[in-house]
Amino acid sequence: MNASTSLRVRLPVLVAVMQAIILALFAMFVTYDDNANAKFQNNQTNPMDNSLYRDYPYFADVQVMIFVGFGCLLAFFRFYGFSGMVFNFLTATFSIQWAILIQGYFQFYHDGKIHLAVINLLNAEFACAVVLISFGAVLGKTSPVQLLVMALLEIPFFSVTEWAVLKYIRINDAGGSILIHLFACYFGLGVTFVLYRPTLNQGHAKEITCYNSDILSVLGTLFLWVFWPSFNSALTFKGDDQHRAVLHTFIGLSASTMTAFALSAVFNKRGKLTMADIQNVTLAGGVTVGASVDMMISPAAAYALGIMGCTACYFGYRYLTPFLARRMRIQDQCGIHNLHGLTGLISSTAGICAILLATEETYGPSMYQIFSHRAPPEGDPKLLELQKLIPGLKPGLGRTAQEQALQQVAAVFITIAASAVGGVLTGLVLKLPFLASPSDEDCFDDELFFDMPADFDSVEVLKPPVSCDEKGQTSPMDTKV
Amino acid sequence: MNASTSLRVRLPVLVAVMQAIILALFAMFVTYDDNANAKFQNNQTNPMDNSLYRDYPYFADVQVMIFVGFGCLLAFFRFYGFSGMVFNFLTATFSIQWAILIQGYFQFYHDGKIHLAVINLLNAEFACAVVLISFGAVLGKTSPVQLLVMALLEIPFFSVTEWAVLKYIRINDAGGSILIHLFACYFGLGVTFVLYRPTLNQGHAKEITCYNSDILSVLGTLFLWVFWPSFNSALTFKGDDQHRAVLHTFIGLSASTMTAFALSAVFNKRGKLTMADIQNVTLAGGVTVGASVDMMISPAAAYALGIMGCTACYFGYRYLTPFLARRMRIQDQCGIHNLHGLTGLISSTAGICAILLATEETYGPSMYQIFSHRAPPEGDPKLLELQKLIPGLKPGLGRTAQEQALQQVAAVFITIAASAVGGVLTGLVLKLPFLASPSDEDCFDDELFFDMPADFDSVEVLKPPVSCDEKGQTSPMDTKV
Amino acid sequence: MNASTSLRVRLPVLVAVMQAIILALFAMFVTYDDNANAKFQNNQTNPMDNSLYRDYPYFADVQVMIFVGFGCLLAFFRFYGFSGMVFNFLTATFSIQWAILIQGYFQFYHDGKIHLAVINLLNAEFACAVVLISFGAVLGKTSPVQLLVMALLEIPFFSVTEWAVLKYIRINDAGGSILIHLFACYFGLGVTFVLYRPTLNQGHAKEITCYNSDILSVLGTLFLWVFWPSFNSALTFKGDDQHRAVLHTFIGLSASTMTAFALSAVFNKRGKLTMADIQNVTLAGGVTVGASVDMMISPAAAYALGIMGCTACYFGYRYLTPFLARRMRIQDQCGIHNLHGLTGLISSTAGICAILLATEETYGPSMYQIFSHRAPPEGDPKLLELQKLIPGLKPGLGRTAQEQALQQVAAVFITIAASAVGGVLTGLVLKLPFLASPSDEDCFDDELFFDMPADFDSVEVLKPPVSCDEKGQTSPMDTKV
Repeated sequence: MNASTSLRVRLPVLVAVMQAIILALFAMFVTYDDNANAKFQNNQTNPMDNSLYRDYPYFADVQVMIFVGFGCLLAFFRFYGFSGMVFNFLTATFSIQWAILIQGYFQFYHDGKIHLAVINLLNAEFACAVVLISFGAVLGKTSPVQLLVMALLEIPFFSVTEWAVLKYIRINDAGGSILIHLFACYFGLGVTFVLYRPTLNQGHAKEITCYNSDILSVLGTLFLWVFWPSFNSALTFKGDDQHRAVLHTFIGLSASTMTAFALSAVFNKRGKLTMADIQNVTLAGGVTVGASVDMMISPAAAYALGIMGCTACYFGYRYLTPFLARRMRIQDQCGIHNLHGLTGLISSTAGICAILLATEETYGPSMYQIFSHRAPPEGDPKLLELQKLIPGLKPGLGRTAQEQALQQVAAVFITIAASAVGGVLTGLVLKLPFLASPSDEDCFDDELFFDMPADFDSVEVLKPPVSCDEKGQTSPMDTKV
Repeated sequence: MNASTSLRVRLPVLVAVMQAIILALFAMFVTYDDNANAKFQNNQTNPMDNSLYRDYPYFADVQVMIFVGFGCLLAFFRFYGFSGMVFNFLTATFSIQWAILIQGYFQFYHDGKIHLAVINLLNAEFACAVVLISFGAVLGKTSPVQLLVMALLEIPFFSVTEWAVLKYIRINDAGGSILIHLFACYFGLGVTFVLYRPTLNQGHAKEITCYNSDILSVLGTLFLWVFWPSFNSALTFKGDDQHRAVLHTFIGLSASTMTAFALSAVFNKRGKLTMADIQNVTLAGGVTVGASVDMMISPAAAYALGIMGCTACYFGYRYLTPFLARRMRIQDQCGIHNLHGLTGLISSTAGICAILLATEETYGPSMYQIFSHRAPPEGDPKLLELQKLIPGLKPGLGRTAQEQALQQVAAVFITIAASAVGGVLTGLVLKLPFLASPSDEDCFDDELFFDMPADFDSVEVLKPPVSCDEKGQTSPMDTKV
Repeated sequence: MNASTSLRVRLPVLVAVMQAIILALFAMFVTYDDNANAKFQNNQTNPMDNSLYRDYPYFADVQVMIFVGFGCLLAFFRFYGFSGMVFNFLTATFSIQWAILIQGYFQFYHDGKIHLAVINLLNAEFACAVVLISFGAVLGKTSPVQLLVMALLEIPFFSVTEWAVLKYIRINDAGGSILIHLFACYFGLGVTFVLYRPTLNQGHAKEITCYNSDILSVLGTLFLWVFWPSFNSALTFKGDDQHRAVLHTFIGLSASTMTAFALSAVFNKRGKLTMADIQNVTLAGGVTVGASVDMMISPAAAYALGIMGCTACYFGYRYLTPFLARRMRIQDQCGIHNLHGLTGLISSTAGICAILLATEETYGPSMYQIFSHRAPPEGDPKLLELQKLIPGLKPGLGRTAQEQALQQVAAVFITIAASAVGGVLTGLVLKLPFLASPSDEDCFDDELFFDMPADFDSVEVLKPPVSCDEKGQTSPMDTKV
């Protein structure tokens, strides 16, 4: 039909090239981690000590979040449900493959090989979450080819930033508020800034939800909500650290959910609830507790963080998103700046406060495990003393709380700068002519990229019979007809 | 629109007050359990022994049941899907927060603090399940403000009853048939008795399902079905006890599912299946095996219990629910008396039989672990002997099987009485004028409390064009139009 | 309405008879496994070593796949969503009960009893998956009574084949590519061959999808996708073997997903994506890695297998399925021959290659654990030597790689032959007159077996108002009207 957006050549060529490259790189560089290598099994091996049993439950939960949770959440548009769910599937799958290689090179590469275990997949899913969050900024306005190219570029930008921050700045960010949420947010805003479509500021006839799509989207929210404690605790230390991460995430989400309902009702003129708030703002607490999720911040603080994050997120949706779209040329389709940016900033600040307030009195000697960069450096006699109390303790950098806090601040700024620049550059690439970018009119429409079932037309046809009844009803669609 | 049901002031004020109270109580009284406290880590600590790894998998499964399973199941009405799913979300979230505090005070309070771990959250989710079951009795006829107030009152009623029964009567009820299902059922019936709406006995035009809502509801059933073994086994002893609980629950559900299909077909005039039966009656077996779920009742007994529970549940829906509504002023919207009451009574009876039939020949010395109140009391020489065989065995009350059985009977009556009284009192509070209770006409309608997408109207508009075709079709909606 | 397809007598009688038989057999022959038996607990028992904790997580994941994943996937028809989802529920439940007994007799029977633990349920779910895959071949054309009879016969056919192949031929097939997928496929084709309906080769007006059913079906795909690593790894050795199975399955699925998108676009005339491809072809990689899923095939090989399986599956849907229907009287409704047959054959071949290429250099001594039939036989001094390195190693048959490869080939042919014969015989039974088989016209229609909600009619009524507008649109339905 529309030659410029046909996927017939573009998508297969891109996929074929990428699959060939990935297969070649897998063949050359990817081998099994010792935990997945039959050769390393011997008479000392207890199979149940395999790292699989520590990592797989969290991996499985995050899988549900990525594929089912995000997939349903992004299917909230009435005429864009196929695209929301299926492009999420495609983009996520590709992002994970690509991250296994790129992130693997930075984090799991030694002896000339990337050593593969479930922990790599788990890390790759976090990189994938970054791409999917950024995807939220441009939902409805991008072709699957553009999304794959975005993932192709974002994964390296993210992996380098993650590696540089973790290796050189060395921060505490167990729940990924800085590295995942802030990076994803500002990268996505960078992309959408470049892809600015002025006419869409007047709204689009298909930028609407329907009864079933709203329910599907809430279902996605619920899956994200339910498994978010696994997401935030997957990469913490095992034991009490992970236990706290689960507790704080649950409490934070729980608090933000209550607050979201209250705010949704109070600012609605007719005192009703708005489904978009239930779908998005309820989740703010999960991000807000992220940076301090494994620290001894107290359950009450997690509760307060949930309320604060939710409030910022709600007002962001209400005032900031329209402002950004009209004045700053930043059309943030799903409001990722509210759910991931503002909350990420609050979370980073809370993390810094928690670092400054941490004392050995509260944490005991395991403070030097959680705040690992504050541990005494190699050779320091205090290290040996601490290692008697916490056997596996690794030497650190001997930082003070203030030093660590400053590094956190630096990491926030560097992450935001790197991601924004990366996003803008990626946006420029996405404007290249052969990437099947939809026209303004064809945005938010599954029909552009899918063979549609017969009833898809009839959905639009629903209205005419009404007008023949002279009911004179109006709906958002009328602006188009 | 409708001032008396606007949530604009009522809901935010209630939420704000409750969140302030909860935050204050968290700050004053909630601290970390030793398993979540960094300070208690030392060189003897094996992180993988943390209670998190025992409790979290069951917690995650129950989370899916509460938020996704119940949420979808309760979304079965055609015009009340938003409300069913979203009010479930709101009520569940609040109930868990509240139960962490109230139930925590009774079960996890020592040294002036509630000590928080995932096990508390798991217990709180069971308290939450109680509220959600009761919610089923008044689905479609209550505002979110009323639901929050109901949770606010039901959690303390439940926590006190649970504490009193467990502390003073001391019963075996691993799957919660008495304390969860019977309590929830009779509390809900008490509430709906007070909230009786005579006009709704003539039926309501919107009290119908549609194709998509029926499928969504079955999806909820399937999630409950799949994870029910985790629900019933979450609080048993670890090891063979929990293993049996999983087996019995699966077998019981499996048997009741088959029976439900048979009964649905045989009592349908045209020999067809009824979706409401598939959605509800199939689950009866999960409740029916509850009270004896960890005992050595034999797999065949679990199968028989599934069939019996399902049969009682089916006939309850068919004959008892209409009778209760017309003659007893008890409008049990989702038929909780069938799925939780009748099955709970059968389960309690089965539990008593299992207690009476238990012998050391069948159970070995671990009989005194499962039936912990039958263990010899502190100081009894037989206790020391048993502790050599079962190292962790705690002293009991030295009850005989008959004594224990009598206590179970007492617990059933006390639970029913306490819950019914609690329900009636709560119902009286819910009748207070400022709780946004919907009028009879506005029941079962999302539009009362939600901003609706454009196609919600068109759903109703579907019919007129047909009548202009002179098709003369009738549907339940015609009773209204 | 239609006496010949009324379930009023047929279904309840069949269910009642089967439940009576199952209950009797449970009572006579099913007891607890030692891990679920209170009597075997003593002062040496560590409750956390119970087999429950090794098996239950995988069981729970497979439960989601069976009931939610398959259920949603099979609900893809516009007018057959109730049936797809609910008949899957019924058939799965019955199959598992029946497999606990029949498969239990072959695999878990000793001392005159079937010993029941979660591992039996897990095995029974695999048998159940076999039935559900075969169900795919006849979806829309069979009554629930026929489906139960099919399960009643297929479970014994499968259990005997599985037992004979595992006991006498002794093969490596961790992911079940041969025993599960090939068996299920050719059994299903045998059934559908006998049930051939010539008129359906011209298409059926209701053999269509709609917007919501397509989304529901993709949701099913996503649940299968997410938990497939658990499916393929559930029955491997614990430790590095299971770890590899998870990795290979994820990589294979991931590769096949990308390829499916590319093929879907390139062969579509308008360069669009087809939902049926996304729903089915993406999953091909999960089957293709099956037979070698626990071997040291390298991550790159898993990736290549995913691409190959997906390609075969795609072209199978495109060319082979229509050919089979028109020329071979084999109407394969869901294309199970593509997703399970062709991929199963590729997987079997890959497994044979992996067996031939396996060396001690790659696997270390644990080669004799994975390829257990190559381990030296009882009494061989090399066995004792190996047992020092791999303590739990069991004596094998001392086969060479070539011998094992030949046995695999034999197993493939025997499995295909046994399943095809079993399928044909079962098909003949399903043609018996009193099994409520739908007429050609009533196929793909929920109304035949369900009480439908009011809007089900209105779905069909959607079209008339359009024609009064003289829009002159056509849709697949017009072929009927």
